[in-house]
Amino acid sequence: MKVLPKSPFFETGVKSYIYGDAVLEYAKAVDAAAIKYDIDVMFITPYTDIRMVAENTERLIIVAPYMDAIRPGRGIADVLPEAIKAAGAKGVLLNHCEKVMSLPAIRATIERANELELFTFVCADSLVEARAVAQFQPDIMNPEPTELIGTTEASDMSYVKDTLALIKGMFPDILVEQAAGITNGAQVYEFLMVGNDGVGSASGILKSKDPMATLHDMISNVRRAKDDLRKIRSGGSL
Amino acid sequence: MKVLPKSPFFETGVKSYIYGDAVLEYAKAVDAAAIKYDIDVMFITPYTDIRMVAENTERLIIVAPYMDAIRPGRGIADVLPEAIKAAGAKGVLLNHCEKVMSLPAIRATIERANELELFTFVCADSLVEARAVAQFQPDIMNPEPTELIGTTEASDMSYVKDTLALIKGMFPDILVEQAAGITNGAQVYEFLMVGNDGVGSASGILKSKDPMATLHDMISNVRRAKDDLRKIRSGGSL
Amino acid sequence: MKVLPKSPFFETGVKSYIYGDAVLEYAKAVDAAAIKYDIDVMFITPYTDIRMVAENTERLIIVAPYMDAIRPGRGIADVLPEAIKAAGAKGVLLNHCEKVMSLPAIRATIERANELELFTFVCADSLVEARAVAQFQPDIMNPEPTELIGTTEASDMSYVKDTLALIKGMFPDILVEQAAGITNGAQVYEFLMVGNDGVGSASGILKSKDPMATLHDMISNVRRAKDDLRKIRSGGSL
Amino acid sequence: MKVLPKSPFFETGVKSYIYGDAVLEYAKAVDAAAIKYDIDVMFITPYTDIRMVAENTERLIIVAPYMDAIRPGRGIADVLPEAIKAAGAKGVLLNHCEKVMSLPAIRATIERANELELFTFVCADSLVEARAVAQFQPDIMNPEPTELIGTTEASDMSYVKDTLALIKGMFPDILVEQAAGITNGAQVYEFLMVGNDGVGSASGILKSKDPMATLHDMISNVRRAKDDLRKIRSGGSL
Repeated sequence: MKVLPKSPFFETGVKSYIYGDAVLEYAKAVDAAAIKYDIDVMFITPYTDIRMVAENTERLIIVAPYMDAIRPGRGIADVLPEAIKAAGAKGVLLNHCEKVMSLPAIRATIERANELELFTFVCADSLVEARAVAQFQPDIMNPEPTELIGTTEASDMSYVKDTLALIKGMFPDILVEQAAGITNGAQVYEFLMVGNDGVGSASGILKSKDPMATLHDMISNVRRAKDDLRKIRSGGSL
Repeated sequence: MKVLPKSPFFETGVKSYIYGDAVLEYAKAVDAAAIKYDIDVMFITPYTDIRMVAENTERLIIVAPYMDAIRPGRGIADVLPEAIKAAGAKGVLLNHCEKVMSLPAIRATIERANELELFTFVCADSLVEARAVAQFQPDIMNPEPTELIGTTEASDMSYVKDTLALIKGMFPDILVEQAAGITNGAQVYEFLMVGNDGVGSASGILKSKDPMATLHDMISNVRRAKDDLRKIRSGGSL
Repeated sequence: MKVLPKSPFFETGVKSYIYGDAVLEYAKAVDAAAIKYDIDVMFITPYTDIRMVAENTERLIIVAPYMDAIRPGRGIADVLPEAIKAAGAKGVLLNHCEKVMSLPAIRATIERANELELFTFVCADSLVEARAVAQFQPDIMNPEPTELIGTTEASDMSYVKDTLALIKGMFPDILVEQAAGITNGAQVYEFLMVGNDGVGSASGILKSKDPMATLHDMISNVRRAKDDLRKIRSGGSL
Repeated sequence: MKVLPKSPFFETGVKSYIYGDAVLEYAKAVDAAAIKYDIDVMFITPYTDIRMVAENTERLIIVAPYMDAIRPGRGIADVLPEAIKAAGAKGVLLNHCEKVMSLPAIRATIERANELELFTFVCADSLVEARAVAQFQPDIMNPEPTELIGTTEASDMSYVKDTLALIKGMFPDILVEQAAGITNGAQVYEFLMVGNDGVGSASGILKSKDPMATLHDMISNVRRAKDDLRKIRSGGSL
């Protein structure tokens, strides 16, 4: 059975900003915050560090940054799905704008992930690409708003609402994460309160002045949103 | 300073044939044989398993199956050179026939490896490609004889001698490994006795009837070659 | 204004089977058949032969086999959209299974085509990929049934009807062409009578025993379908 | 038999700067200059325009900007070697920095070109890459000095002399062209007088204030160099 994050969740990772011990140190800090606020957190980890992070954290849901749709056999330098699963990944990121994929590759890789009960977390760079990606019914989608670069904050929220409505309207079971230039906890709260399942930030934390403070600001706001959403859903007022 | 294998050496790896615990089990068996026969062994490991193998073996020289010529920063799903080094790799395989590279990429990646004191182990698929690859002065070359598929054993040895003479004639410091369809210890001995620095086998071991027996047959013959070469070089006879 | 084929239409091309004079000879024969039966025919032509075919035929609607989403400037060896248009192409084939594209590339190339009023003819290899490709609203789609290889004729027709209903249900203006293993005129007639806008065949003609006879068999059946569809639509019976 | 340019020669092309009629107009102007000064000129032409330029010029030696190492058969959107030859190309450009190739692809494509008696004109981006590329023994090499961007004019000439000596030292029959930031006829003359076989310029002409004047300045200087080299070689003085 797939291990999926429960809404509302948080997502972070290290891209190639840091490596080695610094990855473990960051992962432990994120894990501690996830435990403290009792929130599910997806952690996207370089291939080399998946096992180390999995073995040294409790609450993180480890995500590999990519995998190839191969089966055990030949294929040196490819990323075998069974290998990332054995190392501790529960899901895989696909079609990130730094690693775009063809349609047949997206289809085949999602099929391999489903076969191994790895969840798929797939990016799309625009409204139209979000509609296209949704057809493959990944578990989680991140409609990264490349279209919005240079636009105002207000239109950001309209993009967020549009992509959310669009994806949920087609496939209500797909979890939707927003990860567009998130730099503080207030944004995290706002994005979750309008109905997104998750919010993500990597460079927004790692490149901030005080990464630990930013991390706690963000994850504590996932907690706040979780509590407030529960009140609202049970008929209460905030 | 780069950690290079000392001649004569052995090389093996798992490609994508096995994963997870089976990789560790195989690595430990290879490590035990390397210690028993006191031979340097390069072990090519999937990205996910580099750290696990490095932490659980003593004598293996871990080689990553590829890396990208990037620097710390963006680049999700790429393989950061600093990350494979931090995980325990001492060198990197480049331009394997299952992951061919452009000339500018080969140049840039060898430069990054040199900068980090990772050794480079570069493949070439023919005599002419071996001449081309040698110009970049990698530390170790594997001139995989794609040209020879379907030819006789005799021509194999002539190819082996030709590529060896060719590379050493241009750059005497480049270590030369042969890894063409090696299936037993007698071949290992023969290839080392004509002057090759190393011999490699992955599928020859993993797909054999008794992988452990094949492994010991091969590594013990590296030992035998080492002893016999020493006798010859010190003026003795076999 | 885009020059689109009128339904029901036929499509053929030469892939890389023939070249030079043989392409022109084939194009002239197809053009003569298109004129004889008064049917629109799309002709997919290698880059090198677009202008020659355009200048020596009357009725063919020339389609380039691919283009890059670049603008005039640098880019040696790329296929400039303006260059294929200037040579005489009215449309462009995208995402053929022999030239798959990433989602951002599909989006950008369709945008460039729209800007130049070149129509887009986009392939998809399965029902799910057809749903994804349709989101980009190309002018014509060819849902190539890779999934059906090795299945029976009956399921072929069910796939044909499914993809047709699927695409028209989402975007009624997208023209749908079927091009799956078409080898004779009876199939052409049958596929058009169930509502497809076009039928295509390249190797079905070029690799048949008598290509000219096969060509006429197919195009004459487009004529027959056109007449019969007109009768039906005007309330008549066949 | 291959149709190679005779030294000293000139090379130009249009990349993707212009298209359609403008390509033909430029080609005719270059052809007229080639005839006027009785100089061999290679003209690199987009795939779409090879036949048009070949049919409307007398003296130009047409070069395709790339080709794939395929044989007649499947392969839509690929560039079939037979197709560019049938269109009128005498040679093919390979490994341009805007279209880098893997080592196996360079080898296979040069073999296909040799088989069809198309000459190969191969780029290299540095001294070390020039040594590597030369091993494949293409007919003509262009060692583009990417390494020199931002350096002084003096070191440019030293790079030019180094690459020339390097290539001719290994394979005297390879023709060497220099095409680094050439903007006027004096540079053309200078580069040819030190022993290069050819000089090339595309953007240096097309982006100059008066392209026709620049073109004539350059080609007339090939003529001047040809005359002066003949005098020197026959024992005369300038």
